[in-house]
Amino acid sequence: MASQALTDRVQAAHRAARAMAQASDAQRRDALARFAQALEDRREEISQANRGDVEAAREAVETGEMSQALLDRLVFQDAKIDQAARGVRAVADQEDPVGETVRATRLDEGLKLFQVRVPLGVVACAYESRPDAGVQMAALAMRSGNALVLKGGSEARASNRLLAEIARDALGQAGLPEDAIVALEDRTELHALLELDHLVDLVIPRGSSGFVRFVQENTRIPVLGHADGVCHTYVDEGADLDQALEVCLDAKLDYPAACNATECFLIHQAEAGAFVPRLVQALGEHGVEVRADEVARKLAPQAEQATEEDWGHEWGDLVCALKVVDGLDEAISFINTHGSGHTDAILTRDPERARRFVAGLDTAGAFVNASTRFADGYRYGLGAEVGISTGKVHARGPVGLQGLTTTTWVLQGEGHLAATYQGEQARAFRHEDLEESYGG
Amino acid sequence: MASQALTDRVQAAHRAARAMAQASDAQRRDALARFAQALEDRREEISQANRGDVEAAREAVETGEMSQALLDRLVFQDAKIDQAARGVRAVADQEDPVGETVRATRLDEGLKLFQVRVPLGVVACAYESRPDAGVQMAALAMRSGNALVLKGGSEARASNRLLAEIARDALGQAGLPEDAIVALEDRTELHALLELDHLVDLVIPRGSSGFVRFVQENTRIPVLGHADGVCHTYVDEGADLDQALEVCLDAKLDYPAACNATECFLIHQAEAGAFVPRLVQALGEHGVEVRADEVARKLAPQAEQATEEDWGHEWGDLVCALKVVDGLDEAISFINTHGSGHTDAILTRDPERARRFVAGLDTAGAFVNASTRFADGYRYGLGAEVGISTGKVHARGPVGLQGLTTTTWVLQGEGHLAATYQGEQARAFRHEDLEESYGG
Repeated sequence: MASQALTDRVQAAHRAARAMAQASDAQRRDALARFAQALEDRREEISQANRGDVEAAREAVETGEMSQALLDRLVFQDAKIDQAARGVRAVADQEDPVGETVRATRLDEGLKLFQVRVPLGVVACAYESRPDAGVQMAALAMRSGNALVLKGGSEARASNRLLAEIARDALGQAGLPEDAIVALEDRTELHALLELDHLVDLVIPRGSSGFVRFVQENTRIPVLGHADGVCHTYVDEGADLDQALEVCLDAKLDYPAACNATECFLIHQAEAGAFVPRLVQALGEHGVEVRADEVARKLAPQAEQATEEDWGHEWGDLVCALKVVDGLDEAISFINTHGSGHTDAILTRDPERARRFVAGLDTAGAFVNASTRFADGYRYGLGAEVGISTGKVHARGPVGLQGLTTTTWVLQGEGHLAATYQGEQARAFRHEDLEESYGG
Repeated sequence: MASQALTDRVQAAHRAARAMAQASDAQRRDALARFAQALEDRREEISQANRGDVEAAREAVETGEMSQALLDRLVFQDAKIDQAARGVRAVADQEDPVGETVRATRLDEGLKLFQVRVPLGVVACAYESRPDAGVQMAALAMRSGNALVLKGGSEARASNRLLAEIARDALGQAGLPEDAIVALEDRTELHALLELDHLVDLVIPRGSSGFVRFVQENTRIPVLGHADGVCHTYVDEGADLDQALEVCLDAKLDYPAACNATECFLIHQAEAGAFVPRLVQALGEHGVEVRADEVARKLAPQAEQATEEDWGHEWGDLVCALKVVDGLDEAISFINTHGSGHTDAILTRDPERARRFVAGLDTAGAFVNASTRFADGYRYGLGAEVGISTGKVHARGPVGLQGLTTTTWVLQGEGHLAATYQGEQARAFRHEDLEESYGG
């Protein structure tokens, strides 16, 4: 059960959300400009607070209570703060995601219907370690007219507290309610927060896949994000093998820890003899451990024997799986079974087989002759990224500011009655598309 | 826990979904045409099966095990079947919701990104009594390229079994997998179905608000729909009171059982003296029981005294609440507190206050000078309606076929590597909007 204090704070964010939804574009940009400026002005103070968190965390790493990876992501000082401030300004420069008229229809004389983009309301971000994730989410929430509940980890308590204070000040100075950003501190509160589905419209978890899965399994609030990034790259019969080798290496090696790195290569049997030895050799030269099925191991004995658990596994490291398949259909079916619906690629010279691959896959990104590493909001041209969603409702794939909005329907009449349009004397609807915007 | 038999059937629908996603527009239309024809051809057989269900239900009503309302909605014979067949043909005539290119961007020379509309996958519809709801959902699922799991009530077992058989035959004759429609029968299976969140992408409950709430509270599958329709109509200072009276009566009386009927009227204090007596009188003449706050009762003593429970209550009947408010801000705040986010209207002559009402409300439909009864997919010009959603993610308000789709991102390259676009020698992205469609 959520404590009264927690409920009160989220309730305050819920009230502030209504004011945020009514704020002008200029007002929201102003808050972001002040936020960026204050991050720079208070760089020393932030670095100081963060050094305290990092020191305590270092002890926890020594006693084995915390991982080194978590400690690395905790650091937020000096140049990193300037970088975060630049990120806030970049979000301010994004086009306003709010107020767009998505659809306009004349239902009848004097009766116009508009579908208009509006903020979601209250977004919660639950994150581990990285204080910069809180800064980024605060910027995205301000830009999109939402209220934000930040639930950081206790390891970043001092940093997060100060950053939230700075964000709240910026809101206040821009004439917006400070409670549009609420930072929760106590670690035990996450579970309680996840119960407040009547106050929170969307939760975005940022952290390990275990953390994301915990959030997904413990709330009825819609969750945006992904627990797993098990991406596949399939090398088709007749592929340009030189090009395929380059793309495969990029997909695995460009940033192995990323969710869009390829974890499993599927090779058409017709190319296996020529390609498997080259790929295993090249991956090995870059320090990648390859776990291959028996057919592939006959061609490249230096690969390890893959087990059932290696299919669909996310290593996020210099390890990958490799399998020889009969053809396109087996590749599609294998990916639909073992993939996580994140991003999967085909390398082929045949446009018809590319089309079949795209249509047959159930995934957020179906790539043709390109590295899975392109799956990213910035690379897609979406600007600031909220995250990458493998869910199918609301938003799928890399999600920009639009993922923090919904729509409402505005009907403008002149005293129109529903009864006019039914029964024997029914007047007919016109249902004409309008070029008009709501309020414009 | 879901039984193996249940899991197997839903798994079959999950496999069929991939074939449906690849079916052409013509193939899906063909299935619908065959479905409509078969409903007409087998009218007698369907009526016969339904008469059996109705007979058993009549006994259950006599012993008090079933409500008369449920029995009324169970009848599906003769002319009703012809009407359902016409509905199926109307769905076939809807524009294809699948394949649309939502966004196209040139990332660089030879590297194009398309966001393409695709079916969701597996949709489940849980419904009570009305066999025609199953027919309608089957048509919507076929049109949108989804597989459908139908979970009807035991009271309609014979009817639903036959209708599912007819729908499956139509799919088969059109060369599509019969398992794209799977009908579950056993009433105890609903809870088990709701656990299959790895196989089902969306659940649409159709039934009483208690039934919808049960589904919402017992699944991690995204739910599309609404439990409550607590609509408000606010009469502003300076409103045209003759027009307001007409709209208020339409909003309450046009179809009191509908979710978009107004349940509560808010009257600006400046108009209360002139309007409250007229409204209460007129509602009374139409048999509506009015539950009013004290201020209103002084003006119309024939109204009942409202209690706290009357605010935010959905009667779906000839009962309503009425309250005098200080002004626009109180009206907005009252509606945000007590409404269900379905549809709410302002009756006003002042465009600026109308704008503030629209911006201040957190609702799926904000209406100006029109009856709340207009909230409906057909009236909005969306064609066939999946339901009305009060959720904020995915789809909000009346939802057409588009609510049964999602998007995927297709990236077409020529061997492009992510590494090219980073580091000191980074090549810049172009991010140009394209007019092109995927595959077109």
